[in-house]
Amino acid sequence: MRTELNALSLDLYALTMVQGYLAHDMHQTAVFEFFVRQQPRHRNFLLAAGVEQVLDDLAQMRISSGELEWLSRQDGLTQELLNWLRGFRFTGEVHAMPEGTVFFANEPVLRVTAPLPQAQLIEARVINRLQFQTMIASKAVRCALAAPGKQLVDYGLRRAHGLEAGLFAARASYLAGFHGTSNVQAGRQFGIPLYGTMAHAFVEAHDSESEAFEHFATANPDRVVLILDTDDTEAAAKKVVALAPKLMKRDITIRGVRIDSGDLAEHARRVRSILDEAGLMDIQVFASGNLDEFALQQLVSESAAFDGFGVGTSLATALDAPALNCAYKLQSYAGQPRRKSSEGKATRPGAKQVHRAVDRNGCMTRDTVSLESEASPGGNPLLKHLMAGGERTASEIPLALAREYVAGQIDKLPPALRSLDPTDLFPVTVSESVTRLAATLDAERAGSAGSPGNRPFDATNKQHRLKTSGEPA
Amino acid sequence: MRTELNALSLDLYALTMVQGYLAHDMHQTAVFEFFVRQQPRHRNFLLAAGVEQVLDDLAQMRISSGELEWLSRQDGLTQELLNWLRGFRFTGEVHAMPEGTVFFANEPVLRVTAPLPQAQLIEARVINRLQFQTMIASKAVRCALAAPGKQLVDYGLRRAHGLEAGLFAARASYLAGFHGTSNVQAGRQFGIPLYGTMAHAFVEAHDSESEAFEHFATANPDRVVLILDTDDTEAAAKKVVALAPKLMKRDITIRGVRIDSGDLAEHARRVRSILDEAGLMDIQVFASGNLDEFALQQLVSESAAFDGFGVGTSLATALDAPALNCAYKLQSYAGQPRRKSSEGKATRPGAKQVHRAVDRNGCMTRDTVSLESEASPGGNPLLKHLMAGGERTASEIPLALAREYVAGQIDKLPPALRSLDPTDLFPVTVSESVTRLAATLDAERAGSAGSPGNRPFDATNKQHRLKTSGEPA
Repeated sequence: MRTELNALSLDLYALTMVQGYLAHDMHQTAVFEFFVRQQPRHRNFLLAAGVEQVLDDLAQMRISSGELEWLSRQDGLTQELLNWLRGFRFTGEVHAMPEGTVFFANEPVLRVTAPLPQAQLIEARVINRLQFQTMIASKAVRCALAAPGKQLVDYGLRRAHGLEAGLFAARASYLAGFHGTSNVQAGRQFGIPLYGTMAHAFVEAHDSESEAFEHFATANPDRVVLILDTDDTEAAAKKVVALAPKLMKRDITIRGVRIDSGDLAEHARRVRSILDEAGLMDIQVFASGNLDEFALQQLVSESAAFDGFGVGTSLATALDAPALNCAYKLQSYAGQPRRKSSEGKATRPGAKQVHRAVDRNGCMTRDTVSLESEASPGGNPLLKHLMAGGERTASEIPLALAREYVAGQIDKLPPALRSLDPTDLFPVTVSESVTRLAATLDAERAGSAGSPGNRPFDATNKQHRLKTSGEPA
Repeated sequence: MRTELNALSLDLYALTMVQGYLAHDMHQTAVFEFFVRQQPRHRNFLLAAGVEQVLDDLAQMRISSGELEWLSRQDGLTQELLNWLRGFRFTGEVHAMPEGTVFFANEPVLRVTAPLPQAQLIEARVINRLQFQTMIASKAVRCALAAPGKQLVDYGLRRAHGLEAGLFAARASYLAGFHGTSNVQAGRQFGIPLYGTMAHAFVEAHDSESEAFEHFATANPDRVVLILDTDDTEAAAKKVVALAPKLMKRDITIRGVRIDSGDLAEHARRVRSILDEAGLMDIQVFASGNLDEFALQQLVSESAAFDGFGVGTSLATALDAPALNCAYKLQSYAGQPRRKSSEGKATRPGAKQVHRAVDRNGCMTRDTVSLESEASPGGNPLLKHLMAGGERTASEIPLALAREYVAGQIDKLPPALRSLDPTDLFPVTVSESVTRLAATLDAERAGSAGSPGNRPFDATNKQHRLKTSGEPA
C-alpha cells in the first residue's frame, strides 16, 4: 500500500545524459532555471508552490542499494555511472521564490546552481514538484477571491490524480487561502485543519433519514453537519428542524447542513428560510457538487445563504488548465551563458533574478527580470538563497506562515489581477542585458557554426496564453 | 523524499460515519459499486484500470500505531472507533472487471461486499485508484488507435500530478498499448520497457552540436537517439549524416533522431530525406512536443516519415478530460437494496452484473446491466470474483498479460468505437428487474416518509456526456 516515490522517478534520458557528461568530464557548474512559459487563459497571476518539497527532495535524495542493484542489471549503463549514482548527494545551490510568492510567466521561479550531472539528474523531479502545487495553488486562490469570507474546504482527494496528488492538492489549496481539507493524511502530515460532514450512503444505510441524522449526531456530537439531498432537500431540512430540540436536550448542537445537488442557490435559500423560521439561525449552510471559482462567484452573488463550500474535482485537478506550460532549462554552463533557440521554445540565457517594484501602498507595480550579475533595477529581489552546499540555508517555513504571506500579497494585488476574468497583463520587463546576451549568443552560434538557425529572440513583454505544451525536451 | 501514502489518505467523513455505524451496531453487509456516470465527450469507450492496485490496497491496508496515536489526539474520535481502526483488516469480497476491460458509463466496474464500516472506510481510496488509471488508459488507447504501428512512449512524468501519478500513468498507458515509458521507476516497479533520448540541455552544454552528438553516442553506444531541434533541425540532421560513418567505424549505430518543435511533419519529411539521401534509411525519426491523439492522427496522415512518438502532458494528465464523473455508491445494506434519488445523481439499486454479448466473430454487440440475483440475460459476465475474505482469489494478472487482453478487445471493437470522434453510443441495456427495483424503492420511500422526493428513475439507455462533476457525496 505504501508507494515509494523514490530516486528513480526520473526520465531515462537523465541517466544517459549523465553518463555522457561523466564520460567526458563535464562536471563544471551549470545553472538551470524553472519557469512557466505561458499563463493559462484564466490565470492573471500564479502562486509559487512546492518549493519546500523540492528542497526536501534535494536534501534527502540518495540512490538506494536496491535501486543500484536493479540499475546494474539494465543494459547500457556504465560502471562509471553506477558509481556516481552510488555516491550521489546534491551539493548545489538553490535560489527560489519563497513558498507562496505571486509570480508571472517567464520569470525564473527556482534556480539550481550545481555540477552539471547533478543539475541534470533532478530535472523531472523539479518540474513535477513545482508544476503540480503551483497549478493547484493558482487555481485555489481564484476560489478564495471568488468567495471572500466563506469557508472553503478541499474535497478533492477522490478525484485527484493519485493519493499523493490528493495530499499535495490539500497543501497547495490551504497555502492559497482554503480553510482546510477533508483529507485526513493532509491533516496529519501538514497540520491542515480537517473538515468532514456525512455522505448520502450514511442516510441510505438507515431505514429513515431522521434516524440517520440522529445516529450521526449522537455519535459525532462535536461535528454535526447533516447532508440534505439524499432524496428531498427541503423535506430533509424539516427533519433537521424536528431533530434540533431533541438534540439540544442532550447538549448536542447541529453545526451545519450540506447540499450537494440540484439548484444550489435555490435550495440554500429555502433551507435557510426553513431553518430561520425555526429559530435555527446558527446552523450553517454548506454547498458542494461541481463547484469551481465561477460557480462560487455566482452562488455568492445569487444567495447570501451560504456559509461555506466544499470544492473537489475542479480544484484538485485544476480542471480548466490541468497542466502548466513550464520548463527547467539550462541557462549557463562553466560560466558561459547558454540558450536554445528552438521554434517557439527559445530560452533567455544567464542566471537571472526578478525584482518587484511596489508603490507607496505596497501594491505591486512592475517586475523586472535581469541578470543576477547586473546592477539591481530597483525593487525587491524575489529569488532568495534557500539552499547552499545541498543544505537548506534556513529551516522550512511553516505552512501557516506561508499562508499568511500569500494572504498579505493578495491584499496588495493590483485590483485588475483579482478578477476571475482575463485582464491586462501585469508588466514584466526583461532587462536590456538579458536581451543583449541572447542576441550575442545567437550571433556567435550563427557565426561559428554557419547555422541558419538564428532566430531573433522576442524580448517584448508578452505573456503568451496558449494551450499547455511540452514534453521531456 | 519518500511519501508514505498510507491508510489515512481518506476523507474525514469516512471516520465520522464509521463512528456512527459502530455506535449503532451497523455491521451488516453492504454492497457498494464503482461506476462512471458519464463518458467524456471524446471517449467512445473506457478501459478499466487500477483494479489491481485496489486489490493490493485492500489486502494490505492496516492502520499503523503512529497513525492511531495521531488519531487519538484529534477531537471527537471515540475510543470505540480507535479500537476498531486498530484491528482494521479488510475482510470483504470484491467482484470487478479484470484489469483492462472495455466498459461504458453506468456499468458497475467494481463491487465491494463487506461489513458496512469497512466498505465505507475505503470509499475515497477505491475512487482515487480506479479513476486515475482508468482515465489515463482510456486516453492512451486513443493514441494507440490514432497511430497504428508506430512506437508510442509515455513522456509524462514531469507534467503528471505528482510522482505517483507519473508512475501510474506509465502503467496505465502501457496497459492500453503504449510500448514503454521514459519513467525509470515505472520500469523498475512494473517491468515496463524504458525509452530515452537526450535533452536540448545536453547539446547546449557543449560548445558545438556535433561534439554533443558524438559525446552522447560514444557514451551510450546502445541508445543513440539524437535531438535535432536545439537550433536548426535540418542543419542538425546534416551533422548526424556527417557523424554516422565516424561512429560506424567504432561499431556504433545511430538508432534514431527526435524532433520536438516546429512543424513536425515538415521537419520529419526533410530530415527523412536528408537521412535517406545519405543512405541512412535505418535511422528512425521520432517526434514529441504537444502531442495528443488528434495530433498523432494528423501527423501520421501528413507524413510517412515518423517511426514513433513521445506523448507527455496530454497523456499523463488526460488533458481534455482530466477527471471522470464517477462514484462509489451504496447499492444494498443488510440484504435490502438502497438508492439515492438526488437530482441528476440517482443510483441504480442492488448488486449488479454486466453481461456482454458478442457476434459470431467475437465482436461486442451489446451489454446488459442486470441484478446479480436474476437469471443471466446471456453473454459473458464481466465482473469476476477477484477477492474473497479480504484475500485475492488468484494471483495478480501480470501487466503484460493484461496488455494482451486489451489488445484482443480492441481488435474486436465495433469499428465505430475505434474512431477518435464521438460516435453513436454502444448499446447498454438495463434489465427490467433493476428498473422495477428502483421504482419500488422510490414508491416505498415516498409511501413511508411522505416524501415528495420520488423522482422517476430514467432507465433509458442514455450515456450522458456531460462535464465531469462530483464531490465527496
